[in-house]
Amino acid sequence: MVIDLNADLGEGFGIWRLGDDEALLDVVTSANVACGFHAGDPLNIRRTCAAAVDRGVAIGAQVSYRDLAGFGRREMDVDPEELCAEILYQLGAVDGIARAMGGRVSYVKPHGALYNRICRDPEQAGAVVAAVADYDRSLPLLTLPGSVVHEIAAGEGVTTVVEAFADRAYTGAGTLVSRRSPGAVLHDAGTVADRAVLMATEWVVEAVDGSRVPVEARSICVHGDTPGAVLMARAVRDRLVEAGVTLRSFT
Amino acid sequence: MVIDLNADLGEGFGIWRLGDDEALLDVVTSANVACGFHAGDPLNIRRTCAAAVDRGVAIGAQVSYRDLAGFGRREMDVDPEELCAEILYQLGAVDGIARAMGGRVSYVKPHGALYNRICRDPEQAGAVVAAVADYDRSLPLLTLPGSVVHEIAAGEGVTTVVEAFADRAYTGAGTLVSRRSPGAVLHDAGTVADRAVLMATEWVVEAVDGSRVPVEARSICVHGDTPGAVLMARAVRDRLVEAGVTLRSFT
Amino acid sequence: MVIDLNADLGEGFGIWRLGDDEALLDVVTSANVACGFHAGDPLNIRRTCAAAVDRGVAIGAQVSYRDLAGFGRREMDVDPEELCAEILYQLGAVDGIARAMGGRVSYVKPHGALYNRICRDPEQAGAVVAAVADYDRSLPLLTLPGSVVHEIAAGEGVTTVVEAFADRAYTGAGTLVSRRSPGAVLHDAGTVADRAVLMATEWVVEAVDGSRVPVEARSICVHGDTPGAVLMARAVRDRLVEAGVTLRSFT
Amino acid sequence: MVIDLNADLGEGFGIWRLGDDEALLDVVTSANVACGFHAGDPLNIRRTCAAAVDRGVAIGAQVSYRDLAGFGRREMDVDPEELCAEILYQLGAVDGIARAMGGRVSYVKPHGALYNRICRDPEQAGAVVAAVADYDRSLPLLTLPGSVVHEIAAGEGVTTVVEAFADRAYTGAGTLVSRRSPGAVLHDAGTVADRAVLMATEWVVEAVDGSRVPVEARSICVHGDTPGAVLMARAVRDRLVEAGVTLRSFT
Repeated sequence: MVIDLNADLGEGFGIWRLGDDEALLDVVTSANVACGFHAGDPLNIRRTCAAAVDRGVAIGAQVSYRDLAGFGRREMDVDPEELCAEILYQLGAVDGIARAMGGRVSYVKPHGALYNRICRDPEQAGAVVAAVADYDRSLPLLTLPGSVVHEIAAGEGVTTVVEAFADRAYTGAGTLVSRRSPGAVLHDAGTVADRAVLMATEWVVEAVDGSRVPVEARSICVHGDTPGAVLMARAVRDRLVEAGVTLRSFT
Repeated sequence: MVIDLNADLGEGFGIWRLGDDEALLDVVTSANVACGFHAGDPLNIRRTCAAAVDRGVAIGAQVSYRDLAGFGRREMDVDPEELCAEILYQLGAVDGIARAMGGRVSYVKPHGALYNRICRDPEQAGAVVAAVADYDRSLPLLTLPGSVVHEIAAGEGVTTVVEAFADRAYTGAGTLVSRRSPGAVLHDAGTVADRAVLMATEWVVEAVDGSRVPVEARSICVHGDTPGAVLMARAVRDRLVEAGVTLRSFT
Repeated sequence: MVIDLNADLGEGFGIWRLGDDEALLDVVTSANVACGFHAGDPLNIRRTCAAAVDRGVAIGAQVSYRDLAGFGRREMDVDPEELCAEILYQLGAVDGIARAMGGRVSYVKPHGALYNRICRDPEQAGAVVAAVADYDRSLPLLTLPGSVVHEIAAGEGVTTVVEAFADRAYTGAGTLVSRRSPGAVLHDAGTVADRAVLMATEWVVEAVDGSRVPVEARSICVHGDTPGAVLMARAVRDRLVEAGVTLRSFT
Repeated sequence: MVIDLNADLGEGFGIWRLGDDEALLDVVTSANVACGFHAGDPLNIRRTCAAAVDRGVAIGAQVSYRDLAGFGRREMDVDPEELCAEILYQLGAVDGIARAMGGRVSYVKPHGALYNRICRDPEQAGAVVAAVADYDRSLPLLTLPGSVVHEIAAGEGVTTVVEAFADRAYTGAGTLVSRRSPGAVLHDAGTVADRAVLMATEWVVEAVDGSRVPVEARSICVHGDTPGAVLMARAVRDRLVEAGVTLRSFT
């Protein structure tokens, strides 16, 4: 019984901070480091990479649309060729810093609107996969199961790793309930921690219809943008450890 | 008799172009590729790197202050620690793209106001040198001779390579005549080409006082931002070849 | 017989230029001045406004998505409330500069992807109309006829002015032929000039099916991003004057 | 006995927040609203302006260098003509939004490194004064006394208003003790509030040498970037009111 915990880190910019990076780095085994396009200035990236290396936390490149003002949360009709080059640029930038700090980028997690878009848009998904393949074909791509990007990655020989969300409601079909629906996001730390244990030990989640659906995730995503979120992430980690689950990066 | 010719390339951004990259790539042996901070979007960087690899032209990272609006030509009081991280970020980004295109960054040339600042400011010079040392200590730094950055690089075991300017007037002391002085920039392609030959074959330049002063440059910088500039660069190359000088990257 | 000629101006940024603003200002009666979000730095905006005031050319605010890297040509899912504030910001910025130069913004023309989006998206169209209404309800909005933004503007008491494209093919239904179709853009200056005359004198255009369809435009859009484009714009103006049409801003 | 309290507001950007704008708006009589160049996205600016109008707080344009990554705290060698256009752009943008919200920009306060630079650099000071004069000569400029910008403003017929800092140590000559010196910034709310009362009622401050030096300020600057700062600002306001001082904008 082994699982990875991943979270978004280094998402400040200049004077502005977001989330408690230090606290989260003591919880997770994989750090999705912002690459400067939706958040993350170089100094911030360097500090996050150095702290991750110190703690043995794996570093992932959290690549994004170029959209500081919108935090990468707005879909953009970027030309695939341009998107591919933008992903390469971000990968190289964070990997360069990570290596200078004694680590390296060992996986890729698309951020925000790009993450959602490549689940259904083959053109943009192809651009992201091509960038990873061009940069280092051995880097796994952390995404949702059953999505367009998974198929395309498989065709190109790029590994995908599935993640799950312990604080999100699932449908009986194993997909996430839309954020717009009531009850889509769970707020009780104990409940969320229990779901994480079920995911890690039995590879299932209890869906909104009461059924148990399979969730073959090798990583669970936790959040750290509010004090409550950090406490929940900590609860998830503690409950997993109590349940005998080994926390370890998938890389 | 061997000399390198270097020029700034990939200095467009988005829809905007600057200079004739294709023409210049047939002239130079080293391409100072913009890294996105003063110019250079990722697609532009990728095309420039791919074209440089095709022609066997060496790729350098033309690192800069973060200043698109000012094209990196305005001095900024950036904190050294932040500047160091910004240089690392740019180095990694362009090197990542260059490697994906089958090449790699093989030297570093600071751009614009940063180039001038580190000739006299030990703090910022130290930040640039530290970034190069952290990234890859074997990368040479292309700058002016006798400057603060040369001393600091020497102390840190980072190689420096001296460049000269065939189209600039030199003082009897071997320094550049200020651009504000009349006659500081030479405009006749033949004259400039002759000076380049003298630099490459006898390692001297004729100063404004008529004396010949030593210029121990391993590279000559040419420009390409106007049609006239490209013609002059071409004239420099042709005259050097006629004089039996071998054009070859210093890397 | 009166018609307005409008063109995009001030679309450089920092060191980069786009199009021949000086030449175009001698052709058009309305200048769509870039507002800094897709192009246009403040100095550039000020020079363009000053030159427009000198020539008696009307100044319009060419408002856009915040997207310098994509020149505002990529659709973005911007929240309507945020888009409204962004339009207000741009309107105020260019109007402030125009007034300091002795003129003022007298109309609004959305740019690029935003122009297209608000022809069909009621949310974003509503945001643009609300910004104009909040800023100065008397400012007309220059757009395509029969679009969603026209309806919404009418409902809010904001005037719309219809423009036509002399260099674009029209369907028998009076809509533009998609740029992806062959023949969508006309390249012969004489033909385009003749079409402009027909638009201005008889308010019709010859469609691709040979029929004459009504085009009730008070302005014709011309381009200036290439030397050929400026020549075509000049030809349109000259032919209109020869045909006895008065060129005058619609404001 | 009348004094103004001013503070920096609206200094978030996109997803990032800075300081407690709501709390500060209940303390101050003048809001220095960020204009988008060092901080402040349009939606943020609009909300801050609307809230200031609601409370009858005067709106000032907190103009800055174009430097989001450095929060406008790094001196930049911007060309005066360009700086002037940048100030005009920011003034117009925030004034446009303020007017749409039922208010207007009624003064100008330069931010950060620009604030310091124009105290001694006549070129940049001239650029800022020229922008204010071009935009609306009746807008006062809020700065330090005895500075270069005051002289230049006087020569151009632009009003200057002097501000003082209750939480900063003063020299016997009436200037601020450098932030690098120990004791330059006072941290006890009671002490700072007492100093504010002395400034407002007797127009003096106790200097580090024990002498009382005149401080003819019409406004006192307070801060709100930390919870402690807001408490201190509140203490300053309360003590002033207790001392019978009327809090009122200088505009």
